[in-house]
Amino acid sequence: MLMYDIISKKRDGYELSAAEIDFWISGYTQGVIPDYQCSALLMAGLLQGFTKQETLAMVESMIASGERIDLSDIEGIKADKHSTGGVGDKTSLVVMPIIAAAGLKVAKMSGRGLGHTGGTLDKLAAIPGCYTELTTAEFKQQVREIGIAIISQTAKLVPADKKLYALRDATATVDSLALIAASIMSKKIATGADILALDVKYGSGAFMQNLADSRALAQLMVELAQASGIKAVAVLSSMEQPLGLAIGNALEVKEAAAVLTNNGPDDLRELSLTLAAELILLAGLAPDRAQAVDLARQQLTSGAALAKFRQMIAAQGGDTDFSHLPVSPLVVEYRARESGYLTAIDARKIGLAALCLGAGRQKKEDVIDPAAGIILRHKLAERVETGEVLAEVHCRTQQQFAAAREILDDAFALAADIPETAPLISDIIS
Amino acid sequence: MLMYDIISKKRDGYELSAAEIDFWISGYTQGVIPDYQCSALLMAGLLQGFTKQETLAMVESMIASGERIDLSDIEGIKADKHSTGGVGDKTSLVVMPIIAAAGLKVAKMSGRGLGHTGGTLDKLAAIPGCYTELTTAEFKQQVREIGIAIISQTAKLVPADKKLYALRDATATVDSLALIAASIMSKKIATGADILALDVKYGSGAFMQNLADSRALAQLMVELAQASGIKAVAVLSSMEQPLGLAIGNALEVKEAAAVLTNNGPDDLRELSLTLAAELILLAGLAPDRAQAVDLARQQLTSGAALAKFRQMIAAQGGDTDFSHLPVSPLVVEYRARESGYLTAIDARKIGLAALCLGAGRQKKEDVIDPAAGIILRHKLAERVETGEVLAEVHCRTQQQFAAAREILDDAFALAADIPETAPLISDIIS
Repeated sequence: MLMYDIISKKRDGYELSAAEIDFWISGYTQGVIPDYQCSALLMAGLLQGFTKQETLAMVESMIASGERIDLSDIEGIKADKHSTGGVGDKTSLVVMPIIAAAGLKVAKMSGRGLGHTGGTLDKLAAIPGCYTELTTAEFKQQVREIGIAIISQTAKLVPADKKLYALRDATATVDSLALIAASIMSKKIATGADILALDVKYGSGAFMQNLADSRALAQLMVELAQASGIKAVAVLSSMEQPLGLAIGNALEVKEAAAVLTNNGPDDLRELSLTLAAELILLAGLAPDRAQAVDLARQQLTSGAALAKFRQMIAAQGGDTDFSHLPVSPLVVEYRARESGYLTAIDARKIGLAALCLGAGRQKKEDVIDPAAGIILRHKLAERVETGEVLAEVHCRTQQQFAAAREILDDAFALAADIPETAPLISDIIS
Repeated sequence: MLMYDIISKKRDGYELSAAEIDFWISGYTQGVIPDYQCSALLMAGLLQGFTKQETLAMVESMIASGERIDLSDIEGIKADKHSTGGVGDKTSLVVMPIIAAAGLKVAKMSGRGLGHTGGTLDKLAAIPGCYTELTTAEFKQQVREIGIAIISQTAKLVPADKKLYALRDATATVDSLALIAASIMSKKIATGADILALDVKYGSGAFMQNLADSRALAQLMVELAQASGIKAVAVLSSMEQPLGLAIGNALEVKEAAAVLTNNGPDDLRELSLTLAAELILLAGLAPDRAQAVDLARQQLTSGAALAKFRQMIAAQGGDTDFSHLPVSPLVVEYRARESGYLTAIDARKIGLAALCLGAGRQKKEDVIDPAAGIILRHKLAERVETGEVLAEVHCRTQQQFAAAREILDDAFALAADIPETAPLISDIIS
């Protein structure tokens, strides 16, 4: 088999066999196939497309490049969740405690991605003392004992993805549905869960700008999971405006804790309950969606979900008194310059403003300020008057605020009429 | 400017600016842009296409990567010729002496390409003593003195092409009309001729399999030349069967010498006269095509073209008595296994058979046997009887013959009816 022939075949629009896909992925991971041949194939695939069969073969070869976590020696139904990422997205901190409280086993590994705001690991790291570096044995032991652990994924998990992603990132070949789906699903499948909920976001603050693309991605990921013997569901949710009101790691932990007592912003609670209910349904713990949502909500109202979250934080060395979270020395109010109904709270721009404050990282080496961030005072379609506070900016210096303010000036828009807003959840695909 | 953005732009089907093309080509040649980004862009360009403006910018940047030959201090009209390559293609050895005899200046640089049979340089190298490695000063002096020189191109000519071609060859990105045209035309334009004839071949033994592709390539190359201030014409010629009867370096020199006395195979003479006449027309040495052909033919019948060829060979150290050309120790007759009209003499397969004999090189390091080759006894549509000789195989060993015979068995086809054959010359584009 020759890499040249595999590139030609894809260039000419033909489907690659599983053996050809494996020759490519394993050869590239092992350093036998050079970057320049791999990038040519990635570009050919991006433009000509990869079939579902090809994508499934990619997932399998990528998983085979590293270690696969075996959770079969943990009793119960192991549940996982993945979000394609968004601004203010702290749903994992809410959903996982709910389903653990409801009796599912949560053995979740997260990657430390780049982004406007931190990932789940960065949010946990904002809690004083909380660590996420556990050995696989410690991880499994914690899941056995308390039913929940959220840790950092090991370097041995799907090394092919790390190498391929770095190349895609340098060669403008990230934006292929098949490659995105294979990257996500190889890691999810390799971590050994039985059931999986995918939160696929669309809109300005999401990876996918439009609903059609996010639907196609969701469909493909669900099919890949099912072909690998995992029950999966995807929820399509809007990322036009940030999720909830808090953006920034410690601020988001606080908001998640509020939702865990059935308080907090409606949109975050609704999306969290939906994702939790879908996992409860997949696990067969409720006969229908309405009862699954009820069961999920009971974990909030009873305090069981918050207790489970605290139990996990404590097991991972963290302070469970959320009044000890880091706070910013400077909190500046950002005010409306006119009156009207909010027609835009651009999630991408709010995310960029938070990035300016140090809430996320642009480069892998960047250090996050856990206290930094933004608290919104309003959501889309709400009425505000000139001079009213739109957001609190949590930061260290006036310079940071000034930089963020410039971006915020572009992020909000107001109009005389109440705008129509997209529903938070557009569809559920299973 | 970022290479990432340039790749994205082409991936999304947009036209690159001349500045972007130059950033790419010069950056890649200088080693600032890595192979993997260049190959991603090449694949994006192959699939999305490059416009004529982009191709012209490529040509200019590629020329700027090296030295440009200045022929302005040589009096007269400097003429050049390029063939996209074929089996038995020795037209340069005929055309260039004709036009030099007619008064044009021939300052021709050839590359030492890979191929079924050798290139022009390999054919000249089959002549005892003949060398093609001249300095630019020696080269120009020879053109001034005798009006003709055919030499090996220097490494300083378009180094970008060498690097890009090696990458294209490894990443299945050779087959782009724009990249092919830019590769050819950058070298032709850099060698400083005033007028140029392009012999663009199509058919089994050619780079382009079909007439439409070769027409598009011809059109593009003519436009690129004209945009660079060079008068150019392209002749579309068939490469379904080998050109002439001789395939192999010394055998082809002998055949070229025969045509230079107005003998030899009709097709080779006709194509050579056409190409020579087109250059004569471009130079304004004849008022119309018919008189241009007459003027070209006069150089053959008068012996002036042969004399000019001998003059060049002598100037480049070669033996001008063509009875001293190397000969093979073994000449085996290959016979027809049935009777009928020849419906196929597959040029590609005949070329592969010649390659088996050592007449060409598969890898750059391969050594050519100048004596080896094949002499056809028949052309397409001729009648042959069972047992009649179809070809003479010139080689060193019976093993070589056996390997060639297997390929030849597939190369010839016979049928009861006279086949229709494509015209040798399909079109002339100027």
